[in-house]
Amino acid sequence: MLGRTYERENCSAARALELVGERWSLLIIRNAVFAGMTRFSEFERRLGIAPNVLASRLQLFVDHGLMTVDGGSYALTPQGMELGSVVIALTNWGDRWLAPQGPPVRYSHTDCAGSVRIQLGCDDCAAEIAIDEVVALPGPGASDEQRAVLNRRAEAESRSTGSPSSRDRVR
Amino acid sequence: MLGRTYERENCSAARALELVGERWSLLIIRNAVFAGMTRFSEFERRLGIAPNVLASRLQLFVDHGLMTVDGGSYALTPQGMELGSVVIALTNWGDRWLAPQGPPVRYSHTDCAGSVRIQLGCDDCAAEIAIDEVVALPGPGASDEQRAVLNRRAEAESRSTGSPSSRDRVR
Repeated sequence: MLGRTYERENCSAARALELVGERWSLLIIRNAVFAGMTRFSEFERRLGIAPNVLASRLQLFVDHGLMTVDGGSYALTPQGMELGSVVIALTNWGDRWLAPQGPPVRYSHTDCAGSVRIQLGCDDCAAEIAIDEVVALPGPGASDEQRAVLNRRAEAESRSTGSPSSRDRVR
Repeated sequence: MLGRTYERENCSAARALELVGERWSLLIIRNAVFAGMTRFSEFERRLGIAPNVLASRLQLFVDHGLMTVDGGSYALTPQGMELGSVVIALTNWGDRWLAPQGPPVRYSHTDCAGSVRIQLGCDDCAAEIAIDEVVALPGPGASDEQRAVLNRRAEAESRSTGSPSSRDRVR
């Protein structure tokens, strides 16, 4: 499965998209996470999705540990459940740019009923940060080529912005 | 464009997926946001993507305000740039579940070089929360049917968990 569509990619986002990047996949996950759906017939009816497509998506989820199936009931594993964050990220973006009537859904915190949204957080300074304050650096799983490309890019960017953290970025 | 694949859906995630849910779309966005790519030839070469597919994705992005094009150079708008959060959400999930060699890429905060990750934040209590503490409620743009379904679901869930905030969830 891995490497099927994006086989040249050494990228966790690409690997995620191999599992949930097809038509309907993330909406099936959405309904499982946020509407508690488990039944084939319920997904089929509520999504209006062709049964062969639905069957193929659910099978892929089961094969890769996103769901378990027992007696025709599909249950999310923790791995599948955590995709809820991806759904919320997409929803937040759609709410912001594509929802002239206002958000159709509000994600709410069960403990305090406050509104839940995706944030970019920094593990060091604990600030909420904006996307233009993020730079991609090679991680432990980077290939040599990625390492060279990402370091070159980070170096060029830090030269152009004069950021004081440039020495850290290319370590 | 909207309503093409998911026309029955009144959902911001589905609307987002109409624009970025096709094969390669989010990886093109990834390279624009985090590798600063702007040139058709550069996307084509680095992604190994068929030129007709690439042309169709970029055109869609331009048509819907995610990018502007000027003299063959494709630049992200703020709307397009904000999709970086979706890419990071996918990456975080892939890093956690699909990266046995370790994350290929580390997203880093330009100010302090700390690691950046997606968090679910609550606007009221400011806590970082887990996905199983999130419930979907009808928002201002919900249809009557959605409102009924989401309220019923939230009510059933609060009965089963005995959450003290059940009165707020179905307001």
